[in-house]
Amino acid sequence: MSAPRFLILADRDFGPLTSKTANSIIRYLPDRTVAVLDSQLVGTSAQDILGAGGDIPVVGSMQDGLQYKPDAILIGIAPVGGRLPEHWRVWLGEALDAGCDIWSGLHSYLADDPMLVERARASGAKLFDLRKPPADIPVASGLAKNVDALVVLTVGTDCNAGKMTAQLQLVKELRERGMRTCFVPTGQTGIMIEGWGISVDAVVSDFTAGAAEQLVLQGAKDADIVLVEGQGSINHPGYSGVTLSLLHGSCPDALILCHQASRVHIGDYRAAAWLKIPPLTDYIRWYEDIGSAVHPTRVIGISLNTYDLDEKAARAAIAKAERDTGLPCTDPVRFDAAPLLDAIVAAREALTK
Amino acid sequence: MSAPRFLILADRDFGPLTSKTANSIIRYLPDRTVAVLDSQLVGTSAQDILGAGGDIPVVGSMQDGLQYKPDAILIGIAPVGGRLPEHWRVWLGEALDAGCDIWSGLHSYLADDPMLVERARASGAKLFDLRKPPADIPVASGLAKNVDALVVLTVGTDCNAGKMTAQLQLVKELRERGMRTCFVPTGQTGIMIEGWGISVDAVVSDFTAGAAEQLVLQGAKDADIVLVEGQGSINHPGYSGVTLSLLHGSCPDALILCHQASRVHIGDYRAAAWLKIPPLTDYIRWYEDIGSAVHPTRVIGISLNTYDLDEKAARAAIAKAERDTGLPCTDPVRFDAAPLLDAIVAAREALTK
Repeated sequence: MSAPRFLILADRDFGPLTSKTANSIIRYLPDRTVAVLDSQLVGTSAQDILGAGGDIPVVGSMQDGLQYKPDAILIGIAPVGGRLPEHWRVWLGEALDAGCDIWSGLHSYLADDPMLVERARASGAKLFDLRKPPADIPVASGLAKNVDALVVLTVGTDCNAGKMTAQLQLVKELRERGMRTCFVPTGQTGIMIEGWGISVDAVVSDFTAGAAEQLVLQGAKDADIVLVEGQGSINHPGYSGVTLSLLHGSCPDALILCHQASRVHIGDYRAAAWLKIPPLTDYIRWYEDIGSAVHPTRVIGISLNTYDLDEKAARAAIAKAERDTGLPCTDPVRFDAAPLLDAIVAAREALTK
Repeated sequence: MSAPRFLILADRDFGPLTSKTANSIIRYLPDRTVAVLDSQLVGTSAQDILGAGGDIPVVGSMQDGLQYKPDAILIGIAPVGGRLPEHWRVWLGEALDAGCDIWSGLHSYLADDPMLVERARASGAKLFDLRKPPADIPVASGLAKNVDALVVLTVGTDCNAGKMTAQLQLVKELRERGMRTCFVPTGQTGIMIEGWGISVDAVVSDFTAGAAEQLVLQGAKDADIVLVEGQGSINHPGYSGVTLSLLHGSCPDALILCHQASRVHIGDYRAAAWLKIPPLTDYIRWYEDIGSAVHPTRVIGISLNTYDLDEKAARAAIAKAERDTGLPCTDPVRFDAAPLLDAIVAAREALTK
């Protein structure tokens, strides 16, 4: 994969919390994003909707989007269950006819759709299924505990709370401080941005921890700090198994707990929310207690996503989280990331002593 | 699937702890087991090796086994990773040529092997991949918490500690007490015995809890007590994600903790054991704390597997577990199951009050 320019599909779901993949691509690869397709937001810009991305336009149809000459269509939403919405197939067919590749991180694979395969073949366009795991992933056996690098895993109070965004920011600033730092992508968006990784939630569950283990062994080869992209939450009714597989497979020395400050229920950015998010101290106990059952680990800081709070409320939420947990806290995307960077560097120093 | 008579393949691995599937079939379907194939134990009987199964003979080759006129070959070992050992394919080809079906619970599917498919087609024999999950399993959303039945999940201190065996025994005796009891199979062996279920460890990890949820909803339709087959262990480096998916997907009201009394390390029936099994009270804290994060649950009893201890040592181990945990304990396969049956019935009564 070279460096294609993307038209991002996020129809009827482009927004700060609903189009996670789209938003990360816009934030980290703005120069490679030509437009976003959302038929309900035609005429707006990425900046209008996300507060990031500048004047990247939102268009209402595939034909309009193709005017911007993308090299590839990137599927920018991750619907519950991850399957390809039926009505998008027509648009994707049009894009393939125009010679555009398709990048997808959905659970349903493009390569399993005969219509798309045929039209890609006809035009010479390519289908990339970035969520498809490699064959022959082993069962994890705790090998990741033996790497020399400091392994840091982001863990969350829910899905879609800003774990990857926080981590990409931390990686960038750790590198600016001169630390040899590797980001380990474990989901489709991270894979799109970094160009390697495994979407662990698409791995058969017996081998999910094994996938995390393989990724850490690879990431630790040329790094002193390995930041592993977290997934889900230890108390998420649907995804907690993915979270625990990552926790035990990656054997982190340190954890950063990510929370969206204004969120009340697990999954309340979607309809079926019923499980209240407990205090951060419950999460710290859960992650440290069950994580340390395989390899000693501790939470070293709190990353708070405050995108929907005004500055005063955001700073108050950060101060409260620090008070409640006794740990350093910041919103590393919005404010100074130093409290978390310092905590990571201190953990690295403690490890090498 | 009718009620075929099996030749069980367990080559070089037939034994009390190594051939889990074989042993459960021999224990619960002895009349349908004609012989066991293990080339290193030719001339012995199931009784000699397992202390169960009577004079079911052990043979050393497929041709010798076919003399006993099986209807199907049943693959009776579950190797780490679950994949089909290469040298067995020759034997399976011979069996198919003789018209025998094959029942497999391995992660590698028989139907993906062109040689086996072709020889099955030629002779009219059938290939059953019992671990292959159904399509379109949803993401779990906590629906199992709403069923009226008491849901009981067995949880373990390790894989292969006797969870399913204990549970089949409890189901049998609860039914004898007149309780409407359903056993929910979550692994290949339970599926072979009961004729339904989903092998949750073969489900893509985003949907593993969803599989457990679907099974409980189905099992609770005509039962007052639902016993869900547990898998793995919450601190198993490779399989903990499967365990937590089951715990959160099935929303159990009560847990039975299963432990093999003499076991010291996670996985010490295999080579790579390094993680010491902590006290039972650690497991009780982990399972109750993280389980109750989604639906309130508690451990109501301890099921101790004492097969390799003499009677005095076994009774001492049971007394110690009771003392350490303050919970009722027994080896329900070897001794009186009443302490656990009484605990389950009491939990059912508490639920309906």
